[in-house]
Amino acid sequence: MSSKMTTDIEIARAAEKRPIQEIGEKLGITGTDLIPYGHDKAKVSAGFIAGLKGRKQGRLILVTAINPTPAGEGKTTTTVGLGDGLAAIGKKAAICIREASLGPNFGMKGGAAGGGYAQVVPMEEMNLHFTGDFHAITAAHNLLAAMIDNHIHWGNALDIDLRRIVWRRVLDVNDRALRDVVTGLGGVPNGFPRQGGFDITVASEVMACLCLADDLTDLQQRLGDMIVAYRRDKTPVHARDLKADGAMTVLLKDALQPNLVQTLEHTPAFVHGGPFANIAHGCNSVMATKTALSLADYVVTEAGFGADLGAEKFFDIKCRKAGLHPDCVVLVATVRALKMNGGVARADLGGEDVAAVKKGCANLGRHIENLRQFGVPVVVAINHFAGDTEAEVAAVKAYAEARGAEAHLCRHWAEGSKGITKLAERVAHIADGDAAQFAPIYPDEMPLWEKIETVAKRIYHAEEVTADPRILAQLAEWEKQGFGNLPVCMAKTQYSFSTDPKKLGAPSGHMVPVREVRLSAGAGFVVAICGDIMTMPGLPRVPAAETIRLNDAGESRGCSDFSR
Amino acid sequence: MSSKMTTDIEIARAAEKRPIQEIGEKLGITGTDLIPYGHDKAKVSAGFIAGLKGRKQGRLILVTAINPTPAGEGKTTTTVGLGDGLAAIGKKAAICIREASLGPNFGMKGGAAGGGYAQVVPMEEMNLHFTGDFHAITAAHNLLAAMIDNHIHWGNALDIDLRRIVWRRVLDVNDRALRDVVTGLGGVPNGFPRQGGFDITVASEVMACLCLADDLTDLQQRLGDMIVAYRRDKTPVHARDLKADGAMTVLLKDALQPNLVQTLEHTPAFVHGGPFANIAHGCNSVMATKTALSLADYVVTEAGFGADLGAEKFFDIKCRKAGLHPDCVVLVATVRALKMNGGVARADLGGEDVAAVKKGCANLGRHIENLRQFGVPVVVAINHFAGDTEAEVAAVKAYAEARGAEAHLCRHWAEGSKGITKLAERVAHIADGDAAQFAPIYPDEMPLWEKIETVAKRIYHAEEVTADPRILAQLAEWEKQGFGNLPVCMAKTQYSFSTDPKKLGAPSGHMVPVREVRLSAGAGFVVAICGDIMTMPGLPRVPAAETIRLNDAGESRGCSDFSR
Repeated sequence: MSSKMTTDIEIARAAEKRPIQEIGEKLGITGTDLIPYGHDKAKVSAGFIAGLKGRKQGRLILVTAINPTPAGEGKTTTTVGLGDGLAAIGKKAAICIREASLGPNFGMKGGAAGGGYAQVVPMEEMNLHFTGDFHAITAAHNLLAAMIDNHIHWGNALDIDLRRIVWRRVLDVNDRALRDVVTGLGGVPNGFPRQGGFDITVASEVMACLCLADDLTDLQQRLGDMIVAYRRDKTPVHARDLKADGAMTVLLKDALQPNLVQTLEHTPAFVHGGPFANIAHGCNSVMATKTALSLADYVVTEAGFGADLGAEKFFDIKCRKAGLHPDCVVLVATVRALKMNGGVARADLGGEDVAAVKKGCANLGRHIENLRQFGVPVVVAINHFAGDTEAEVAAVKAYAEARGAEAHLCRHWAEGSKGITKLAERVAHIADGDAAQFAPIYPDEMPLWEKIETVAKRIYHAEEVTADPRILAQLAEWEKQGFGNLPVCMAKTQYSFSTDPKKLGAPSGHMVPVREVRLSAGAGFVVAICGDIMTMPGLPRVPAAETIRLNDAGESRGCSDFSR
Repeated sequence: MSSKMTTDIEIARAAEKRPIQEIGEKLGITGTDLIPYGHDKAKVSAGFIAGLKGRKQGRLILVTAINPTPAGEGKTTTTVGLGDGLAAIGKKAAICIREASLGPNFGMKGGAAGGGYAQVVPMEEMNLHFTGDFHAITAAHNLLAAMIDNHIHWGNALDIDLRRIVWRRVLDVNDRALRDVVTGLGGVPNGFPRQGGFDITVASEVMACLCLADDLTDLQQRLGDMIVAYRRDKTPVHARDLKADGAMTVLLKDALQPNLVQTLEHTPAFVHGGPFANIAHGCNSVMATKTALSLADYVVTEAGFGADLGAEKFFDIKCRKAGLHPDCVVLVATVRALKMNGGVARADLGGEDVAAVKKGCANLGRHIENLRQFGVPVVVAINHFAGDTEAEVAAVKAYAEARGAEAHLCRHWAEGSKGITKLAERVAHIADGDAAQFAPIYPDEMPLWEKIETVAKRIYHAEEVTADPRILAQLAEWEKQGFGNLPVCMAKTQYSFSTDPKKLGAPSGHMVPVREVRLSAGAGFVVAICGDIMTMPGLPRVPAAETIRLNDAGESRGCSDFSR
């Protein structure tokens, strides 16, 4: 929806925001329990959250999508719109979404706060430093890195193998020059030279730990469990062995508290955490979701990428580990994206093409079928774009309904809550119906390799999953060390069910090669990498940073301008 | 005062803080002009500050000190105490101090918020992320670094000489392994390999620019002026040439707004900015000082290190450039530090030793004499320590008074404002007397080398200043380029008037070797480096980080424990 970006920021700036205290009051958060960051952002105090234990939980609704295409699907926009829609029909609703990464905003990516009349505000602050959570993660991550090299410098009592340090450094910037570096040059006072590198902050395991932690104690446990290096005998060295877990937790104590903001229609919005959706699980924090469920009757949340990656991880990692029970899934599709899945090039999306829509619906159908395997009712949201024709929309509806899933056209982007009332009513009804019988797709006790195969075959519809024998040996080793009960976190392209980003639609019979496995012992999952995964983006030839600057008027509010 | 640290944090935690809105009201900052960060921290909006132009300005009082020793002088403590003392005698007072750097807190350095009953709170937040200013500086600095390498990667239209990139990266962490690195390894997609390195964030020129900027427009101008590299023909490449100045300013728009907190006695305290006191000027922001001067009748501020470095730069860089007119200088000394200047080792500070005190007073005398050269009245504050004897204190008083400077014993550390009433009364009286005839020690038009010589000879009492001919040639080159009117920023050891940290007291006849000169074209000064200056600290053998953790009780307030 890049052509609409100028409008998005204009709408966001024109928004009549209510004081954040008023938004907090809607959920019963008052006084010192709501920690303000400016007049339109706040954190919910950890003490208040601890006191919510035992409260009746609201209904949990996941918004996911078909495989993303350059045409845009509008998953966050629909999450925001549905939250507003539920509020508009008189429900006590809240939304939960991820925080935006700072780095990519100066490259080419737009914001992550929805669009049109379904946005979360303050959009610009959310795309800049927001409440500083990601900076805190950067600081905690790099403190640990410094403590590793410092430990080695002063004698290396833990016998860390310099060649087997797996803890890199992080920065929230797109900087390809930092992907592969040699540190510790310059002689004895600067320590031992070794190979290293930087990832972008959202790729930090600290981010994943923060997003899966139940409270500060759990966070400290997870941080301590993280593996930072191996000894010559290949036994792991944990962050706890370096005594870094306490200081890291102190650095993260504010960041762990969920952030509260509002939609354009003043619906409470928790925006908290933002782990990568490939090497991590791609969902907002457990703290935010659980807090929202304790305070609202309906909580709408989202997961990264399409349903094959995002929803699967939401179910198999986040819900499994946090004990969440989703009541309904909303699967977002657009006519344009379905056309692309039906073989139309982006440049040719202009005219009506019902046949292409029908062909592309195979992608939608596959996701409906997949999502049902988790035991949760599925509703399709057709996110309306200006050029969509009636016949095209009708084709999507007919396709979904033929597969037993109701589909609703939603105009929240253009109309806000009144464009999505029908979907809101149906989702509330379905969620209230207690029809969901949620279960992860594999049990904890299944061996790691079988878990990978299960996801690849049942979700990606692969024929075969391959891996080098050393990868299988590594998985066996981790099982011996007690990590066999962890879920797997699949890292593959988001554009296709297969590992080939060009295979759109609903491919099957393909092969999924597992190239590498990584253990995130603190976050609590085993990452299976099936393709090239970039953990430090670069800037494009003409970075957005070149045009981002203060308004000519030098306004003290709404200074930055992300439109381009 | 390390033995008292436990007490400091206990006092800080037990403090009955007032809501920050109440502190703002004392200065007439209300409603949306005060931007809260939690309940006890706030920023003052840039819009409000812009509206203060033309207001009557308060009296400006600088707190500086004799040369620092491990015995401790208590400059910040005295700044805080004097602010409280002025408030206690009915004056409308505010203090202005620097923000603490995060990195060193996990090494060995204690906080920078005063001590005993003369502290600024919330102490722990100030020693952690505070309001995120330093993180914003880190982000802006590293965005520029990424844009440099990105520019080269995509064709290097500016013809940057890879060997002459002077813009390093920064992180707010003590990490010696990052001092010297090679970046851009890993092949074509990662750019060109080259030597680089990281400094700690407070050493960033962005920090110095932020602290000297008058407003956002001035900040953007300064950022654009910064030199990041040179071409093969040795002409400079500026941040503006990379079009980085706009995005950097957007990243810094919140950080430029001064932070407001309170002392234990609820005196308004601006805590904003914290440039290095060696390669930069070591003072809190001009924005904070000017805002305070527009809102309070008396503003007490401090400068880094001893008066030879801190006060000289405060006068010759900050006051000169910001058009400030200090009314009085308070020179802090302690009996213990004077004894060390008199030749006593730290371990032998226990018993009374009037002779050593008298001998060490030479250091005090030199500073009194130096400060008078700037035309500002000097008052000596003897910061009382428990073991000081009456005879020792009397010796200091007699020495100062014989040189025409009144000296007052201050017990603010133990007693708060009532321990410093006398000093407060005298300082207010002197400041109100309009006796100050402030002038920098050298004029703008003096050639750069002569400026360096002037400071070295008149302040350090050096016999001779030496430099390699290529340094003189570099200075001449900069003068030709139009930088000759800049002030100089001396980087030398803080422990001695000389460049030998072991020469305590009042050495003279020494030689000052200028090893290197650097141009901070955005901040607006030429740095003369006279000795080894470390811009990225390392962690000690047993870093403080190993013992910093949450309280056993897991308290949601006062979690961290910096005492050790």
